[in-house]
Amino acid sequence: MTASYDQYREDRLGRANVADTPERIAYYERLATLGTGALWTVANRIEPWEPASGSVPMLWRYRDLREDVLRALDLVTPEQAGRRVVYLENKGRSDVVAAVGWLYSGLQVMAPGECASSHRHSASALRFIMEGSGAFTNVDGHRMTLGANDFVLTPNGTWHEHGVAEDGTICIWQDGLDIPLMNALDANFYEVHPDLNQAVSHPVNDSTAIWAGAGLRPAGVAWSKPYSPLLKYEWAPTYDALLRYASVTAGSLYDGVLMEYVNPHTGGPVMQTIGASMQLLRPGERTRAHRHTGSFVYQCAKGAGYSIVNGQRFDWQERDIFVVPSWMYHEHANGSDREDACLFSFNDLPVMRALGLYREEALAENGGHQPILS
Amino acid sequence: MTASYDQYREDRLGRANVADTPERIAYYERLATLGTGALWTVANRIEPWEPASGSVPMLWRYRDLREDVLRALDLVTPEQAGRRVVYLENKGRSDVVAAVGWLYSGLQVMAPGECASSHRHSASALRFIMEGSGAFTNVDGHRMTLGANDFVLTPNGTWHEHGVAEDGTICIWQDGLDIPLMNALDANFYEVHPDLNQAVSHPVNDSTAIWAGAGLRPAGVAWSKPYSPLLKYEWAPTYDALLRYASVTAGSLYDGVLMEYVNPHTGGPVMQTIGASMQLLRPGERTRAHRHTGSFVYQCAKGAGYSIVNGQRFDWQERDIFVVPSWMYHEHANGSDREDACLFSFNDLPVMRALGLYREEALAENGGHQPILS
Amino acid sequence: MTASYDQYREDRLGRANVADTPERIAYYERLATLGTGALWTVANRIEPWEPASGSVPMLWRYRDLREDVLRALDLVTPEQAGRRVVYLENKGRSDVVAAVGWLYSGLQVMAPGECASSHRHSASALRFIMEGSGAFTNVDGHRMTLGANDFVLTPNGTWHEHGVAEDGTICIWQDGLDIPLMNALDANFYEVHPDLNQAVSHPVNDSTAIWAGAGLRPAGVAWSKPYSPLLKYEWAPTYDALLRYASVTAGSLYDGVLMEYVNPHTGGPVMQTIGASMQLLRPGERTRAHRHTGSFVYQCAKGAGYSIVNGQRFDWQERDIFVVPSWMYHEHANGSDREDACLFSFNDLPVMRALGLYREEALAENGGHQPILS
Amino acid sequence: MTASYDQYREDRLGRANVADTPERIAYYERLATLGTGALWTVANRIEPWEPASGSVPMLWRYRDLREDVLRALDLVTPEQAGRRVVYLENKGRSDVVAAVGWLYSGLQVMAPGECASSHRHSASALRFIMEGSGAFTNVDGHRMTLGANDFVLTPNGTWHEHGVAEDGTICIWQDGLDIPLMNALDANFYEVHPDLNQAVSHPVNDSTAIWAGAGLRPAGVAWSKPYSPLLKYEWAPTYDALLRYASVTAGSLYDGVLMEYVNPHTGGPVMQTIGASMQLLRPGERTRAHRHTGSFVYQCAKGAGYSIVNGQRFDWQERDIFVVPSWMYHEHANGSDREDACLFSFNDLPVMRALGLYREEALAENGGHQPILS
Repeated sequence: MTASYDQYREDRLGRANVADTPERIAYYERLATLGTGALWTVANRIEPWEPASGSVPMLWRYRDLREDVLRALDLVTPEQAGRRVVYLENKGRSDVVAAVGWLYSGLQVMAPGECASSHRHSASALRFIMEGSGAFTNVDGHRMTLGANDFVLTPNGTWHEHGVAEDGTICIWQDGLDIPLMNALDANFYEVHPDLNQAVSHPVNDSTAIWAGAGLRPAGVAWSKPYSPLLKYEWAPTYDALLRYASVTAGSLYDGVLMEYVNPHTGGPVMQTIGASMQLLRPGERTRAHRHTGSFVYQCAKGAGYSIVNGQRFDWQERDIFVVPSWMYHEHANGSDREDACLFSFNDLPVMRALGLYREEALAENGGHQPILS
Repeated sequence: MTASYDQYREDRLGRANVADTPERIAYYERLATLGTGALWTVANRIEPWEPASGSVPMLWRYRDLREDVLRALDLVTPEQAGRRVVYLENKGRSDVVAAVGWLYSGLQVMAPGECASSHRHSASALRFIMEGSGAFTNVDGHRMTLGANDFVLTPNGTWHEHGVAEDGTICIWQDGLDIPLMNALDANFYEVHPDLNQAVSHPVNDSTAIWAGAGLRPAGVAWSKPYSPLLKYEWAPTYDALLRYASVTAGSLYDGVLMEYVNPHTGGPVMQTIGASMQLLRPGERTRAHRHTGSFVYQCAKGAGYSIVNGQRFDWQERDIFVVPSWMYHEHANGSDREDACLFSFNDLPVMRALGLYREEALAENGGHQPILS
Repeated sequence: MTASYDQYREDRLGRANVADTPERIAYYERLATLGTGALWTVANRIEPWEPASGSVPMLWRYRDLREDVLRALDLVTPEQAGRRVVYLENKGRSDVVAAVGWLYSGLQVMAPGECASSHRHSASALRFIMEGSGAFTNVDGHRMTLGANDFVLTPNGTWHEHGVAEDGTICIWQDGLDIPLMNALDANFYEVHPDLNQAVSHPVNDSTAIWAGAGLRPAGVAWSKPYSPLLKYEWAPTYDALLRYASVTAGSLYDGVLMEYVNPHTGGPVMQTIGASMQLLRPGERTRAHRHTGSFVYQCAKGAGYSIVNGQRFDWQERDIFVVPSWMYHEHANGSDREDACLFSFNDLPVMRALGLYREEALAENGGHQPILS
Repeated sequence: MTASYDQYREDRLGRANVADTPERIAYYERLATLGTGALWTVANRIEPWEPASGSVPMLWRYRDLREDVLRALDLVTPEQAGRRVVYLENKGRSDVVAAVGWLYSGLQVMAPGECASSHRHSASALRFIMEGSGAFTNVDGHRMTLGANDFVLTPNGTWHEHGVAEDGTICIWQDGLDIPLMNALDANFYEVHPDLNQAVSHPVNDSTAIWAGAGLRPAGVAWSKPYSPLLKYEWAPTYDALLRYASVTAGSLYDGVLMEYVNPHTGGPVMQTIGASMQLLRPGERTRAHRHTGSFVYQCAKGAGYSIVNGQRFDWQERDIFVVPSWMYHEHANGSDREDACLFSFNDLPVMRALGLYREEALAENGGHQPILS
């Protein structure tokens, strides 16, 4: 059997449309010996009309995973494992260990009194607390104490470590990182802290004490790093901000009441390669479908409902996690007529925007709602 | 008597040092007929070794002014006066109607049910509420309700108007503007709103509902204007932010616990030409002296104490206003050992910084404290 | 005779319109004793409908000034005078020694072998060479050699000095600085170089060798200063760029073929407070009138023609200097049908833009041409 | 045979070091059924100590490829092929059709009188002309005529097309694009121009006439696009700029005399995702080795020499192309003692920098020179 070189032909002006002939095949085979190829044999494949993500929409139910996450406590020690994490593997991205696109995510568990070793890496990272008390994260000498639905940053290049206080309970949180992107870009560096654990050299929670004043910043405190000096975003003020914003806005047709976590020093994203948001769906709210570039990992922080991604319905409740690949239509619905629902999400929009690649499109047909594929 | 052209001579290399002679004087007189002059006759005057502000340090006691401010209610109607304001006149700047440098300030009074006509101008403006209830400000269709120690912006080019609700009380607030600077720069435009009063087209207080979430911004809400979308900075969260910041900082040697009001969209100043701050002096705190470029207008928002400006002591209590001219040493002291004291201030630092002119110097001698000039 | 407080009344809603009465006059007099005043007595004066510059349009003919400039060589030594400069004095700005607005300008003369002492100051400065050979300027260790129509920067805070080589000829150039603005902003500092003359520590003309490659920059050469690393803009490539641009553009209705000198590192103005441009008027070209904020000093670099400023005609030829105050209509005409004419200018547009104060308006009437006032 | 999950173990604190046991393997297998996995089984693989690029250093000799490139003229028509291009295939990146990293490159050939159809895509693109006369590129209505060693941009989202004039000769040029990156980021869109060919609506070569004035920009010409308005960088002024820069610099230890092509409007890279440079190696110059993140494609534009990449020597002469993968040591040598040599290169540094991932390291050992691997 001879190779076929014309499988991507398209019969349209401006696209490659070259039939295989013996003479051409001989040419292609000769080119291959020179470390080359004929562009027209692959052009239509590598220049698609629009993005066709290799990631698939998926949902992980917390009630399905929780016991297995807890079991890791018995199976491995922190010293052996580094971190006891069950990672989420997208069916289409298992080669790069991604939950969606180039984003990694996992559920980490830690027992009271444990503290992981300190390290730093090129990947930007975040945690979103799911359950337990006493969790803390140290970042470059700053310690943040954490409760459910708190969101904390461990940016690219910062020494960081996670732990749970002696008097805490078993804690589970979601990790989000762009390890796969760092590898893809041949730019991933990793270091273990020389002392294994860093000293906490600032007052506990000083990051929020200094930087969480709305519309206020400490005078004379320089900040030139490319990530937010506000390292922790607590749930209570976040939810409060959503409620206040909801009181004066009609919200987005596609996202309800959506706020982005930002760097208060710049108004920009919290880190250079990962953004994050919290959105509120009002009782009974059902959004319309749109699609855009950028990959998203969602966690339900409050309430229950469902999302339709690329024609597939995913029902979620508190702590469930689901993903939306780039350029797939998605819409969200609050399942309750009386309670609001909140979705936390993180994404690679800062990458899309920094590189000029953000594009968005609303679904025009059917009142903006996707037909459900069976 | 002939004119003297050599009064600015300095006997130092690199400085002009030219004695008058009959020949030279004849030359100078001839140059004058050509619309010219000899630089060396004025060089040392126009190129001083360091700034020598024509403004003088001054303090206005609220108890001295309050009755006269209230009297304006009887003397003129809002229609006659436009605004009933007693302005603060710096002894060295009466020609340009400035409180200090190029900053104007005044105390405005308004009775319940009154509302000034709407206008806009090139000057950037702010209000700091001193007393009364029911005050509001409208800015480009947004209404902000205001209480004591609230700080509100009416930026360059925005339609704005102030009023007091029917069920309010007589209100007094401090206005701050850079009218003198706009005139100096030949850039002052003024317009009266074609309808005299603008419509309030947004939910009341939507500015804070949308933009006062710390570390959060509404997704998809564009903001490209050169001033803060957060138009009102309320006292309660400001004071709270100061206390939280105070709990983790040693503070500045020169300013205690000082926070700048900022544009949450950029982290920069609230307006392009006027900045503002609130600072807290802890019980018993006495700062050291420094000086810097930029002119400042202070109002005591809480407590009592004193400041030493250019060797002169000014005692202040709540609502008193004082000014610090550019490049004059100043230091502050809380007069109480049990209560904290708060100073609101506004300034032209955004101008200094935008033009590359900010410079600062600590007083090295005498432990950083100025001798009091008698 | 009693003072009049109601001389600025305007009978228009939204403007102050308060007649003097004995009671009010008593009030005003009492306010004056408190270091205060009633805003409505001055409001209409300090808030004009549009800018009314105190500067007047003026032209200085080089043939009128040249002999007097040269005479300074005999009257004072460089050591006495610091710099031998005949400054241009605007009739409306003699108190601040400005040519227009807050811009200073003068004609400096220097003999072969002379070199002024090195100094630095807060004012930004520039030179535009008028005649002579062998001139040079040193800036922070970089030496630039200069010929006619070359434009060189000595930015805010840089050590600089001017000189003429031993084998040169008497040189005259135009200085432009914003000394008056620095004084007005209480931000003017002055220092004489400790060694009186600085060392030239870089290859001569390295600034242009490194930074004058169009669309190219040296890799790995950091530049974080707020002014252009390209310190000299030579006449030949500037004129060549104008001709090339002229070949593909219709030009501006108001300015013909106008190019701004820019910082190649940012595309922004050459210095933070002074911008500069060169413009070409094609043979027979006559522009229309517009006005904008910002003050301008022009020098004719080539050809001859005239400009109409605020209704007044000013005829100019090579080396003549004229000024256009802020918000005055102006239009330009090339006097020749066969030769092009070039106007160099410098201005305070970077200040206007940094502070959000730039505004522009075309003259709509009379085909865009001003009537000449007799 | 059972799967091994512990193949990436490292016996070092802070790294995963978990041996397989039956219990653990059962756990891993169960996790797999849930769309999950245990992080510690893959952590050391996905978090390497430093980048280990899958790309390999390669060189393509022009004399090996030229005949086959020309043969494409006979084998396919432009209408069939879209573009007649022989692409360069990195051994380690054939799945994504990349020459190195996420950069695509190919050699395109076109006969006189031909013009490709116009299209646009998310990929940023460039051409570097290798031989022939009469080539042109149209970008959004601007036509650029091109000669050998000219460099032209066709940025992300611009309509563009290439052609050769009727009176030209057969032309060959190198294409550079980041098609692979756009696909990897799920952000690649492609459109054929509705008219198949766009109109040229501006004067030919207006881009250089307007924007190639060094230190000058057209006044009043707005430019808000995220790529350079200067679309063509001609060889003659580029080489001239290199010679001038070479006359005043010692150059870089690692790159000789290296200049980056920049956006004259910002001083930044020519496009958001691809940067480009030209460097000159002086006669006899041999640089030291360093490595950095970012992938590079080089073409020898002048002279001959060699480069050592990751210990492998690649000899090059005019028109040869070679690649340097991310984080591989590389050093260059001019093979002549009398002629200079020039290397054109393009790279993904703008991506590295926008995402905060640039890192660089010099080779410390052996005088900065790599041992040659046999």
